[in-house]
Amino acid sequence: MPIQALTNLLSERTLTEQAVIAKYGRDESPYPPALPLAVCLPESVDEVVEIVRICREASTPIIPFGAGSSLEGGVLPTCPAIALSLERMNRIVRYHPHDFSVTVQAGVTRLQLNAFLQEYGQFFSVDPGADATLGGMASTRASGTNTVRYASMRENVLALQVVLADGQVIRTGKNVRKSAAGYDLTRVFVGAEGTLGIITEVTVRLYPQPAAVAAAMVSFPSIAQAIHTVQAVLQAGIPIARVELLDEVAIGAVRQYAGLELEVQPTLFLEFHGSQAGVTEQSEQVQQFAGQHTGGIFRWALAPDERAKLWQARHNAYHAAKAMRPNCRVVSTDVCVPLSQLETCLLETKADILHAALPCPLVGHVGDGNFHVMLVVENDNPQEYLLAQEINQRLVTRAQRLGGTCSGEHGIGLGKRKFMLAEHGTAIHTMQLLKNSLDPKNLLNPGKVLPDDV
Amino acid sequence: MPIQALTNLLSERTLTEQAVIAKYGRDESPYPPALPLAVCLPESVDEVVEIVRICREASTPIIPFGAGSSLEGGVLPTCPAIALSLERMNRIVRYHPHDFSVTVQAGVTRLQLNAFLQEYGQFFSVDPGADATLGGMASTRASGTNTVRYASMRENVLALQVVLADGQVIRTGKNVRKSAAGYDLTRVFVGAEGTLGIITEVTVRLYPQPAAVAAAMVSFPSIAQAIHTVQAVLQAGIPIARVELLDEVAIGAVRQYAGLELEVQPTLFLEFHGSQAGVTEQSEQVQQFAGQHTGGIFRWALAPDERAKLWQARHNAYHAAKAMRPNCRVVSTDVCVPLSQLETCLLETKADILHAALPCPLVGHVGDGNFHVMLVVENDNPQEYLLAQEINQRLVTRAQRLGGTCSGEHGIGLGKRKFMLAEHGTAIHTMQLLKNSLDPKNLLNPGKVLPDDV
Repeated sequence: MPIQALTNLLSERTLTEQAVIAKYGRDESPYPPALPLAVCLPESVDEVVEIVRICREASTPIIPFGAGSSLEGGVLPTCPAIALSLERMNRIVRYHPHDFSVTVQAGVTRLQLNAFLQEYGQFFSVDPGADATLGGMASTRASGTNTVRYASMRENVLALQVVLADGQVIRTGKNVRKSAAGYDLTRVFVGAEGTLGIITEVTVRLYPQPAAVAAAMVSFPSIAQAIHTVQAVLQAGIPIARVELLDEVAIGAVRQYAGLELEVQPTLFLEFHGSQAGVTEQSEQVQQFAGQHTGGIFRWALAPDERAKLWQARHNAYHAAKAMRPNCRVVSTDVCVPLSQLETCLLETKADILHAALPCPLVGHVGDGNFHVMLVVENDNPQEYLLAQEINQRLVTRAQRLGGTCSGEHGIGLGKRKFMLAEHGTAIHTMQLLKNSLDPKNLLNPGKVLPDDV
Repeated sequence: MPIQALTNLLSERTLTEQAVIAKYGRDESPYPPALPLAVCLPESVDEVVEIVRICREASTPIIPFGAGSSLEGGVLPTCPAIALSLERMNRIVRYHPHDFSVTVQAGVTRLQLNAFLQEYGQFFSVDPGADATLGGMASTRASGTNTVRYASMRENVLALQVVLADGQVIRTGKNVRKSAAGYDLTRVFVGAEGTLGIITEVTVRLYPQPAAVAAAMVSFPSIAQAIHTVQAVLQAGIPIARVELLDEVAIGAVRQYAGLELEVQPTLFLEFHGSQAGVTEQSEQVQQFAGQHTGGIFRWALAPDERAKLWQARHNAYHAAKAMRPNCRVVSTDVCVPLSQLETCLLETKADILHAALPCPLVGHVGDGNFHVMLVVENDNPQEYLLAQEINQRLVTRAQRLGGTCSGEHGIGLGKRKFMLAEHGTAIHTMQLLKNSLDPKNLLNPGKVLPDDV
């Protein structure tokens, strides 16, 4: 047991008291919490290296821990393991305003980063609902509401510092827009959920704050009409910044939770970025498309605080869902399908959940083909939980049949390992090869991403 | 020797006649041609698998061959090897207009693809100078003149079919905008220059043709002023589609070659995409920025044929450089630096080449921080070639010192392996690990990308 050595290294920054470390053994997923052996709070990459060396010597696995906001059990121990929390590595390392990029330690959160950037007129675009860390977001290849315009972590991570399973520190990528100099190690670690290395620094791309921003909501009599509107918008090449669908169930939940006056109908939440004239033009075009597809009146949010309220309502959909029933939790699905299959996938899914004995609000990053059904199950109700699992299973099978993926942005973690073989076929062996070559002793976040039996 | 077995498999599609196979042993690089043992022209992935099995059995290396337009010796044999040309695998496999994507066999070229797409109002954006194949472009992580807006192959490849060194066929990625389902195998092969697997199918993202397009040229008294203009454009978040710099030497060459009336000054070639109003607004803003930085009068190319002529002139810069001297070839440099370092890198480079005994036209994808000095050396003049090598060496060292990369888009091939250690440090060992795990017998394009001594 390496606890003594870790305590020698970090003294009070190696935590072992059960009440204190409990929060490092749970996340936002429906999977049962489990205590790590101990929690290390390194303050430098050198300390991370020492932790890796100590754990490697003792054959004790390490789970990199960010904000604990995983929806798929990505940070839950599956065996006796150390949690390595990056929370004290939360410095902005170097800001490069003229390069539109910033290098941060992995424990910096997205809200912290954007608060820092605000006065410089730039922003970091990727916005999952939670205030996740940049290291965690890189590890799950996160995306969010404005990925339709500004892309996901896959595209926005320029460079990484990574501590490997053997204690080596490497830097992948450069602070440049593009490079053709060898293998793309950055994207080997982006989306690997801490199973191939421990990300300690992240360089991400930034964008200038747009000169003008406008947000709006518009309701439709049916989901199909909302989707047809989105397709027309994309087909016309309108550079929409956000286009989010909430079905009538989600609208009901959000209305109650956020105190927004909304018709209980499928609704698109939209945002336009550009010059003043550009935003006006985009708004008019999209209103026209919506009108052609029986959309209602646009309700505009133009002032910054109104827009913030609108998007807060959208980001709080998860909490609004949770508030639909007392003593419950949310099991969130996360499929992403080709845009051409989105309507089919949504409508078949709606039919499937119509008579479910659970509230099932649905929200979607529909410009990307990604949507979430939030299955609101009672705590300690195994039957409901089973039902939610079955719905999710059918949804994943449907999405994969339509050429899609079991996870658009939440990652695989524990819960979706069982879908990996159906999704990737023989390529799963190539993934296992990567894992074996980079972490031959299986010390980094074991039991995640890859199924056991490949 | 597996030649007999390959002939049994493909009959007349296994080429061995020296005069016929010579073109598969050279490319656009300055490195000496070398004959492959034979050239295979498979027509299906099954045939590629069989070729791999036969060559593996005989321990004969395989070099995947696209259009032969590599500028870095990426397809030159470094030992007795088979060239596997994808030229007969040139079918458009599936077009997904509503997904803005298309799946093609690896031998489809970019001009072929865009000719196919034209009637559907969509286009494939990545445009290196050559009419490269999609497989080759994926393999070198290619980019081009509109990468500043539409990104590079890194971002635009959605999925691949790959034949591995052991003959397994895998599919990486899906026809979806995003996925967080496991390791990003697609980007393991994008940029690997055929050293990790043979790409047989590529699914790429497409874009709707913009409603309006305008192109223009504007000259500046100095490169610094041109760069300041570009920085102001990017800082303002103007979604410029192309912004290319040609220095006064390149303009001199292009003027002569393309018969364009141009002032012999550093010049930006620009393109604007958007709605009619958007293009007008962007044009006005950029003219204002250029004016503030002593730019001259904008010379517009609005009609499709005028624009085509303008961009043909830009794409022909390489040939224009070659036409500057009789009996010569071009050694092209390819550094990419952080945008903030571009001016420094350009000006130091200009100072370095000012008194060189060679014509040195310079062209740059300056919105990405990437530029090329085209060193025009006499054939069979080892002294000039040495001089070019020295200039390139100093330029790479300069770019790396400024935080940049030795290759923005041409790849490593043979010629830049010597810069890899300085660029990647210990990460080079991680690259070698990938190579060892995916191609343990070193059968796929050996002697490329990674230096020998790591």
